[in-house]
Amino acid sequence: MKNPTLDRVKALRQKMNERQLAAFIIPGTDPHLSEYSADHWKARGWISGFNGSAGTAVVTMTKAGLWTDSRYFLQAGIQLEGSDFTLFKEGLSETPSIREWLATTLPSGSIVGIDGSMFSYDEAKQLKDFLESKGLVLISDFTPFEEIWNDRPEIPRDPIFVYPEKYNGEIFKSKMERISEKIKKEGANAFLLAALDEIAWMLNLRGTDVPCNPVGICYAYLSEKERVLFIDSKKVDTDTTEYLKKNRIKLAQYEKIYDFLNKLPETEKIFIDPRKINYSLVKAIPATQKIIFGNSPITWEKSLKNETEIAGFKDAMIRDGIALVHFFRWLETHVGEGNVTEITISEKLREYRSRQALYVGESFSTIAGFNAHGAIVHYSATPETNATLKPEGLLLIDSGAQYLDGTTDITRTIALGELSTKQKRDFTLVLKGHIGIATCRFPQGTRGSQIDILARRFLWNEGLNYLHGTGHGIGHFLNVHEGPQNIRLEENLTPLTPGMVTSNEPGIYIAGEYGIRTENLTLVIEDQETEFGKFYKFETLTLFPIDKKAIDKSLLTEEEIEWLDNYHQTVYAKLSPALDKEAKEWLKKATEKL
Amino acid sequence: MKNPTLDRVKALRQKMNERQLAAFIIPGTDPHLSEYSADHWKARGWISGFNGSAGTAVVTMTKAGLWTDSRYFLQAGIQLEGSDFTLFKEGLSETPSIREWLATTLPSGSIVGIDGSMFSYDEAKQLKDFLESKGLVLISDFTPFEEIWNDRPEIPRDPIFVYPEKYNGEIFKSKMERISEKIKKEGANAFLLAALDEIAWMLNLRGTDVPCNPVGICYAYLSEKERVLFIDSKKVDTDTTEYLKKNRIKLAQYEKIYDFLNKLPETEKIFIDPRKINYSLVKAIPATQKIIFGNSPITWEKSLKNETEIAGFKDAMIRDGIALVHFFRWLETHVGEGNVTEITISEKLREYRSRQALYVGESFSTIAGFNAHGAIVHYSATPETNATLKPEGLLLIDSGAQYLDGTTDITRTIALGELSTKQKRDFTLVLKGHIGIATCRFPQGTRGSQIDILARRFLWNEGLNYLHGTGHGIGHFLNVHEGPQNIRLEENLTPLTPGMVTSNEPGIYIAGEYGIRTENLTLVIEDQETEFGKFYKFETLTLFPIDKKAIDKSLLTEEEIEWLDNYHQTVYAKLSPALDKEAKEWLKKATEKL
Repeated sequence: MKNPTLDRVKALRQKMNERQLAAFIIPGTDPHLSEYSADHWKARGWISGFNGSAGTAVVTMTKAGLWTDSRYFLQAGIQLEGSDFTLFKEGLSETPSIREWLATTLPSGSIVGIDGSMFSYDEAKQLKDFLESKGLVLISDFTPFEEIWNDRPEIPRDPIFVYPEKYNGEIFKSKMERISEKIKKEGANAFLLAALDEIAWMLNLRGTDVPCNPVGICYAYLSEKERVLFIDSKKVDTDTTEYLKKNRIKLAQYEKIYDFLNKLPETEKIFIDPRKINYSLVKAIPATQKIIFGNSPITWEKSLKNETEIAGFKDAMIRDGIALVHFFRWLETHVGEGNVTEITISEKLREYRSRQALYVGESFSTIAGFNAHGAIVHYSATPETNATLKPEGLLLIDSGAQYLDGTTDITRTIALGELSTKQKRDFTLVLKGHIGIATCRFPQGTRGSQIDILARRFLWNEGLNYLHGTGHGIGHFLNVHEGPQNIRLEENLTPLTPGMVTSNEPGIYIAGEYGIRTENLTLVIEDQETEFGKFYKFETLTLFPIDKKAIDKSLLTEEEIEWLDNYHQTVYAKLSPALDKEAKEWLKKATEKL
Repeated sequence: MKNPTLDRVKALRQKMNERQLAAFIIPGTDPHLSEYSADHWKARGWISGFNGSAGTAVVTMTKAGLWTDSRYFLQAGIQLEGSDFTLFKEGLSETPSIREWLATTLPSGSIVGIDGSMFSYDEAKQLKDFLESKGLVLISDFTPFEEIWNDRPEIPRDPIFVYPEKYNGEIFKSKMERISEKIKKEGANAFLLAALDEIAWMLNLRGTDVPCNPVGICYAYLSEKERVLFIDSKKVDTDTTEYLKKNRIKLAQYEKIYDFLNKLPETEKIFIDPRKINYSLVKAIPATQKIIFGNSPITWEKSLKNETEIAGFKDAMIRDGIALVHFFRWLETHVGEGNVTEITISEKLREYRSRQALYVGESFSTIAGFNAHGAIVHYSATPETNATLKPEGLLLIDSGAQYLDGTTDITRTIALGELSTKQKRDFTLVLKGHIGIATCRFPQGTRGSQIDILARRFLWNEGLNYLHGTGHGIGHFLNVHEGPQNIRLEENLTPLTPGMVTSNEPGIYIAGEYGIRTENLTLVIEDQETEFGKFYKFETLTLFPIDKKAIDKSLLTEEEIEWLDNYHQTVYAKLSPALDKEAKEWLKKATEKL
């Protein structure tokens, strides 16, 4: 069968020819610069056939390339077969960046096109500056998919809903006052929001437009003078209309945002986060208008969970832990029967969680990797790869849920049978790293990149490492990945601050053999105040035992054993009251002292 | 007595008035942007009376301010008494930055002056952009001190000398080829050097113009077409002339650099590090000339010590250690006599070191702080503060030397009598941090800011901290502080790479009581290579025992005790062969197992 992308590329080149473009860049995001997008915006997947979560396609009149990172080398290699696209493996020293490739491939004076709404202002501006320095031209208003993508999915029209104060802990009015105060200090009196989770947090609204992310597709413009929500009117029911009206928020059609910005009165001084607002939106603002660029204050405020949100997280963790007790008991009983597969696991996890109060859905697609599959960091079982579990080796399960009062994300790796010495050593080294983060105490101002080593140093001593981050921020009934903080090798200026919830998830992946990861969510809390200033520490929020069968106790220090025993004691104390006798006994055993 | 700076400020204001300046900024550096300058350039000290190593003066027609950091609040407070200058304490939230202060103090349209040769291109450009955004004007050619500073010291005219290959390990020709290759990749065919240690390294020259830094004052211009050293001809003797000639390096007078740059042929494409070249030099280059801005490749190459340099460091460490054995034995014998002072210590250290082969001088002014003085991080004893030692409490000594084959920098804190439990605890926490760095193993690409926590975490657990860096790079018979790497809380993109020599110096300072610091120099070396890439570790270079009397052994792990015992065994093995019987016995005892 002929690869359908061949005709698509042909149609695209025709459109490019009409605009005299030498190249067109197609990223994998949307006008809100989301990590996960609705199908409507998956143009990169449509044109290239590659549907991984990260990747950018570039088409010239004679060549086509797809850039993606090491997580997707295998998948992209398969999906690009029979297409025009060459795979460019990011991160390898011999791979040119897209812009370098364009600079060497295209003759001077060539025109490169983008759809400016798919790039942040910062990205597009840097691209433009670079291309111009190489004698190339960038145009940012090329939107061919509107015409050539025939069966393009619609923009989702699911309803949004008001997220009540009993869960969010702070009404819109109060948030508006705080944020207005902040942007006023920067000399602004208005701000534009495009990131869907920022709008959801700011307006206390939620939606179901993006799988796993409880957000609705819209833009918001909030100023001293007026407040406008740009959204498909079909998404707004009577209750929501009422709520918006009460908060003096007007409604406008989603695509009217561009006209609106174009006609802003000159008194408006707009605060823009150039990494959160797309290039086309910024270009729509007349040049005479005052724009103040800076980091979105909402990213920061949203990351500092308030008391209600923290209480919600803690309650959700109990229900999530209970669901997991039932699930792992079920797994333990059935793993030997020869009919439990990686896909069964996802289904059963969803089933047990959905029985819990306030359950809304998954917070991301479950990763369940048996033995060698566990070593593929972003593994997602498909009918083709789906492995049947056996009572041997290691099983890695990374899963999470959206509850109305909080979001969860937990990874456990369990021994399904006897483990080798090396497996136990690796499991224990990962655990030591996990405990290193969990018990760390640090002064105000400390960044995630400074503490990351505490999760890795035991692995590094053995010449081992993992290539993902140690921790990501997490939203409160919002996206499972959010900024600004993280715990990573890479630099990030954000200080870890009380109220932030971050994952703690070191791992180790032995290609072709097994993967190990142990992940809890942690909350930054106050530790002590001395003449040297304020000190902070972490409180672990996630409640579920860590598999003792996989631990080599001789590698743990007394302090580490104490941490594990205390953690297990907490898990038992919090989960057992809601468990029946058998489940309680199971948990008792799982949380016994090491 | 009238403060002499009052008349100086008056004379300055007259000159400012002639140029219609509203303000003038006087930093504490020189045209080479040195950390330590020759007296000729200490204009900030002359105008304000404040002679600390860090600080900037600003004079307007009616006000005068001196900005400095917490190390100098006390000293500046005293030295500014009776002057026009108000002290601005940097790092306090209520203190405006200089540019913010100017923006709020001066009326719109005011002209701010600087001497552009005292600012890096980057600094001046950012200042200019900021001031212009606030409606102010910057002029960069205001050099009043040439006229108003009557008894201004001359620019030093000490001779430079050729630094031989047996110490530097790589002849100029080879360095020139490597660096030319690097800048060629950036599209340049010429480079300009102003940083004195970079010129010294590049040309294998040394000098004695700056105390403790073996450099000579000059500029260098190196291109495919020509090589020019801009230097006072009195500094160049026959041997050096011969050497330069052999390497096709022409001589020109020091101040001719500006004319030279102004008349460069258009074929020259000049590589400039905008943080290492002063603003006036860059402005002297005609606008039509091609400039390529980037990080100086010499900073990087200079930091990677070659085999000869490393061997030299190691030899120098033995001689330095031997001098220290003699010194500490002397101290131990005489401390009870009641006539040993902090100043005596500096003198005795110099005396013992000067008896060693290849000794050139100190690498910085000795810090010897007894008890409470040890808590003042940059303490330097003066006749007024000079404390007489008693057989009690803690003595901190930070000192180092320039030897022809290497530079040393070591801090030891020793118990002069019985210590309190708290003193021993603090000493041991610092030692644990020191060992944390010394034993750390990390993958290629790891930055100093990632490992810094290993030095601090034991202190953080107790609510303690130190506010200086954990480690600085060090030159090879060059400046005791050099980049690009360091080990600090602050981010720094430089990866720790084999060949780099960095200090490892955690500390703790209890104001009014005592200070503790334990410092060795360490070399990054290869550790192992696995499927996860290359791993590196440190080799400790400094050779001198750590005072066991100050250690609380119960706070150390088995691994930490093992490190200390092994380190002491190495110290004994390397130093003892050159010691007489008594000194050998002393060292035997000092390096016995804990």
